Parts: sequence; C-alpha cells; structure tokens
Amino acid sequence: MKQFRKVSDNTVNRLPKYLRHIQEELNNGKDHISSAMLAEVVGSTSSQVRQDFSNFGNYGSQGYGYHLKSLDEAVRTIIGIHVPHHVAVIGTGCLGRALVEHLEFQKYNFQLCAAFDIDPSLIGSSINGVTIRHVSELSEYLETNEIHICILTVPKSAAKVVAQKLSGMGVPAIWNFTNETLNLNPQKTVVQNINLMDSLLSLTYHLEQLPNRQRDLPLPSDVE
Amino acid sequence: MKQFRKVSDNTVNRLPKYLRHIQEELNNGKDHISSAMLAEVVGSTSSQVRQDFSNFGNYGSQGYGYHLKSLDEAVRTIIGIHVPHHVAVIGTGCLGRALVEHLEFQKYNFQLCAAFDIDPSLIGSSINGVTIRHVSELSEYLETNEIHICILTVPKSAAKVVAQKLSGMGVPAIWNFTNETLNLNPQKTVVQNINLMDSLLSLTYHLEQLPNRQRDLPLPSDVE
Repeated sequence: MKQFRKVSDNTVNRLPKYLRHIQEELNNGKDHISSAMLAEVVGSTSSQVRQDFSNFGNYGSQGYGYHLKSLDEAVRTIIGIHVPHHVAVIGTGCLGRALVEHLEFQKYNFQLCAAFDIDPSLIGSSINGVTIRHVSELSEYLETNEIHICILTVPKSAAKVVAQKLSGMGVPAIWNFTNETLNLNPQKTVVQNINLMDSLLSLTYHLEQLPNRQRDLPLPSDVE
Repeated sequence: MKQFRKVSDNTVNRLPKYLRHIQEELNNGKDHISSAMLAEVVGSTSSQVRQDFSNFGNYGSQGYGYHLKSLDEAVRTIIGIHVPHHVAVIGTGCLGRALVEHLEFQKYNFQLCAAFDIDPSLIGSSINGVTIRHVSELSEYLETNEIHICILTVPKSAAKVVAQKLSGMGVPAIWNFTNETLNLNPQKTVVQNINLMDSLLSLTYHLEQLPNRQRDLPLPSDVE
C-alpha cells in the first residue's frame, strides 16, 4: 500500500464523502464532476477539494474537472479498499449484529470472516452467514487467520482487556463502539472510537438553537 | 432556551467530549480542572478551550481553572440537556433497538417515549419498556404528544417520506441513520446524518498508513 505524506484528519474524513458522491454521480450516468460540486457535498470550497486530492497525486484538469470513473478508482485506492479487508466482530449482541447487517460491507470490499461472543446461547448460531465462536477461541483463530479490522462491541467493562489482546495478536485496526477509551500503540493498532451519544448531544444543541425553541431559561451564573 | 451567538460546528462537537471528561473527573473525586487538561481530551489547545467556553459566558479563572461541578452544570445547560427531551424511534429493527438499548439515555435526560414500526410481528411488543406502535398511528401520536427528537432507523427507501412527515408535524430534530440525505428546512427541523461507513473507511485509510502495511501496490495513474 502506498504511504502518503501526512494529511489532516479533516482531509481523511472527507474522502468517504467524496467517494459516496462520486458513486452516486456514476449511478446517475454522469461522466465528470467539478471541484465546485464536490465542495458542495462536503461543505467546503473548490480550492479545498483540489488541495485534498493534490495530497495524493495529480488529479483533475482545469475547465473539465475530474473524470468520475478514474476518480472513483483513485479514491478507492487512496482509502485502500481496492484490496479486500477481513473483518471480525467481537461481541454479537444487538449492536454488533445491527452493524454487520446494516452496513454494505461488500460494496466497499470488506469481508466478515469471523464473529466471537461469550454468551453460550449465541455460540454456534450465525450472523450474516458467519458462525459465532466462543471468545476463548480468539487467539487460536488470529494465529492462523489474518484479520485486518475488529469491530469491538463487547461491554465497556471488557473493552480494554479484549483490545489489548487484539493488538497483541497483531490486529492493525479496531472500530471501537464500547465507549471505553483505548490506549494502544498507534504504530501497531489504529483505533476509531465511536461515541454515538456525542452525536446525539450535538444534535440536541442545534435543536435548542432553533428560532422557535427560545424557552428563555437562564444559564447558570458565570463560573469562577 | 438561551440562544447563543453562532459558534462553529467544531466547537459544538467538542462540547459532549468536554462533558464526558468533566463527569469522569467528578467521579474521580476531583474538584477543578485546567484548560490544558481539557485541551488534551479534545486534542486541542488551552486557548481553544478558553475560546470555546467564552462563547457562552465567563467561565474559569487564571491559575485555578474551572470548578468542575459548576462547569458540568454550565455545559449541560449550554447543550440543553438540563431539561428533558422526548425521543421516539421510527424503525425498531436491529439497529433502532441496538441504539435504544446501547445508549445511556437517562444519564443525559433523554426519555424514550414512543416507538414505531411497520412490521406486524413487532407491533405491540416492547422496546425498553415502550410499546411499539404501527407507523400509521404516527400522525395522531404527534398531534397529542410532544416529541423533540426522532431516531430514524427505517429502510433508506422510506427515509425521505417519513422525514418529511416528521418535519411537517413539527418534530424539531431527526437523528438520521438511514444513509439517505435529507433536505429539510433547517429553520424548522435540524438533522444529524450518521454514516457509519464513512467512519469505517477513515479507519481503513489510517490502517493502510501503518508502517508495517507497505504493500507497495501502485496508485492508479494520475487522473486527467
């Protein structure tokens, strides 16, 4: 995989949004797209879009914009999903199951390869065609199978122990839904912490700023 | 509710992170906190932290920092969760159920009041103590009950129609998990679009940048 010069997290976070829009436009039968249109999708400027792509190569041309098919291929390669990634889900309760069933793994070249739980009533049943194994088999499985990404949906109390084990066994990426902050060696295992409550709280802030929501409650007195 | 001067989305998105850390420190028996410590939590600088809070009032003092209990109360009031919010979940499949069961609603003053689905096998059963109603009862319910936030977990194909209905009935906030982009009047209904695949793709990018992942595959040739 090509290593790129260090780009900002904001640039990385815009890549999937570009990709989704590129795919929509391809599905609409379009042939090319301007940086202005891509800017609209990510709520940014044309020059920001051009700067984002210039981190990775020489894309687009003035007046024409970007050839969609080539840009689709390029963005997939930049993100790294031109090659398949093996995924395991650790914790097959409602959230783990929902994620696996809800997300379009195949479309982005992700392959669910294994699932683990501790609940005897779940072991042996299947999730998206994959048999759920007991978590005691995790080490043995990882010794003989390459897993690139683990979806961590175990209870918060188990998160740190399981994450340490995964990192120790060489799993390079953890998608962490446990609400536990994980401190792993970032040169060995990258972690994406998902805290959905943060998102709900941001939404609540915006809701309370709507013009018709002026309840005129006082703020607590200034804090010293 | 007090209307604040317009602050950036980045500031709004940091508020829940501040709140979580304030609560952790309170649970650890701490009394006050410095802007430097809060900065570390959100990956920013002390001056950014001070600037964030100065948008909302006169908080903290030099040398002492912030009094945790007062700051907790202030941030709750700024976000708006010092008052309860009524939540309804529309679509009680695996994802809707997982969200409702996974998130600590009570801790943040959210109250699940209603649940709707279209699947006859689900109607009448309950989700977190709330009876699931048929979606045909939605309008009547909203006429007589105030719902502040709808969690939208219906299939993508139904998202636009349901969202239009909710906005038309005066629901001021939609937490949108349908992967359908919603175009509603932002003066009437605010929308938070959650696209979990974006997060997984960002994680994949970072995974492929790890030092031991240099597969040396070529990038597609530059795109014109």
